[in-house]
Amino acid sequence: MNSTIDTILGHYSIRDFEDRPLTTEQIRVLVQSAQAASTSSYVQAYSIIGVSDPDLRAQLAELTGRQSHVSKTGQFFVFVADLAKHHEIAKSHHVDDDALHSTEKMLVAVIDASLAAQNMAIAAESMGLGICYIGGIRNHLQQVSELLKIPDYAVPLFGLTVGIPTHASKPKQRLPIELVYHENMYDLKTIDDYKSYDADIKAYYEQRTQGARVEGWTDQMAKYIQKPTRLDLKAFLESKHFGLK
Amino acid sequence: MNSTIDTILGHYSIRDFEDRPLTTEQIRVLVQSAQAASTSSYVQAYSIIGVSDPDLRAQLAELTGRQSHVSKTGQFFVFVADLAKHHEIAKSHHVDDDALHSTEKMLVAVIDASLAAQNMAIAAESMGLGICYIGGIRNHLQQVSELLKIPDYAVPLFGLTVGIPTHASKPKQRLPIELVYHENMYDLKTIDDYKSYDADIKAYYEQRTQGARVEGWTDQMAKYIQKPTRLDLKAFLESKHFGLK
Repeated sequence: MNSTIDTILGHYSIRDFEDRPLTTEQIRVLVQSAQAASTSSYVQAYSIIGVSDPDLRAQLAELTGRQSHVSKTGQFFVFVADLAKHHEIAKSHHVDDDALHSTEKMLVAVIDASLAAQNMAIAAESMGLGICYIGGIRNHLQQVSELLKIPDYAVPLFGLTVGIPTHASKPKQRLPIELVYHENMYDLKTIDDYKSYDADIKAYYEQRTQGARVEGWTDQMAKYIQKPTRLDLKAFLESKHFGLK
Repeated sequence: MNSTIDTILGHYSIRDFEDRPLTTEQIRVLVQSAQAASTSSYVQAYSIIGVSDPDLRAQLAELTGRQSHVSKTGQFFVFVADLAKHHEIAKSHHVDDDALHSTEKMLVAVIDASLAAQNMAIAAESMGLGICYIGGIRNHLQQVSELLKIPDYAVPLFGLTVGIPTHASKPKQRLPIELVYHENMYDLKTIDDYKSYDADIKAYYEQRTQGARVEGWTDQMAKYIQKPTRLDLKAFLESKHFGLK
């Protein structure tokens, strides 16, 4: 194929990094790459906070669930769905900003931020760096927001830790293409359609844990579904003026 | 730098494609690339519908705002935030699926789908193809969902049209890095900080429209904010069991 697709298909998450900061130039290229992503109606509705301060990193590692790869990494980026820019613009242009409270604008900001983040992830991996998304940012949104001085109309969505990997690994097997890609219309599968994938994933975990973990993908998902998490998210988003209507 | 970063930084949206379908092999590589993106807790909470049928395409072009690049393109992909898989798994494993109704799970699905889409976009551009995101999918979500037989617990988020560009263009200037990237904590800018960017964007539009369009970025955003759109989105999402709590 080509080297970009090789990079994309070769992705795996890294959770152990060398304790060596990215260079200013690396960070600049990563942020520029993020910014090059498509943006809905040119709104560019996100910000990126690069956390290099060791104290802040230590606090974020704690808040995201004691994840050492938040503190010990090349750079820790926090992606923020950001309509605060637009709120300021509304004030200065004396226009009503009610539209910013809509679920549509929230989705726009979340999608914009995610497209930007994935550009950064691919750019990082193409440079030989490793990455891991940190959804744990959403464990304690209020504290994270206070720590990073994130204003109203802006919400931290996830972290992206980027650094020099201490070791190589390999991609984790995804769902078979026919369970994800549908031709012309959605084709809802039954549980039987997952059997072969379940067997593959079961074998993968068994091998990886010397038999300690025995579960297929659907088993893992059934457990996941039973654990409601981050039930304060809706109220937090609304407190920041997101998705009010 | 490297060719992947060249591809990323060279992005611009394409709205005129040759009327030539992508090959099965191209589609397979694009979907595999999408699937290789990171996914929160391995949930893989999205589906991709590839619309090749000319009638469906014509209807989607109408529903998304008469966009000819939806009907005349290599392939038209619809990215779906998809917890329907997980709903089926919950039923078959006899577990309560209440957690799927949370705003957290909605965000997980939206972010998962967006990361996958951006992988596809970069893969496509690395192959010399052009892309354009189609947010217009959200103009008429009920009709789009019916047309593509999208079940409950699944919501179409945006389209991605991918094909052979009829002409080249160049990237559209993004916000200066210091207005997007913050070191250690969020730094809320004032409207004055946008002056230089506004001047650049004003010059860009003036030149591109032979003087017909004279507006900076903040002017464009002020107009955007005044136009509330897709106010039915919240109710639609809730009707599909998304973000209920």
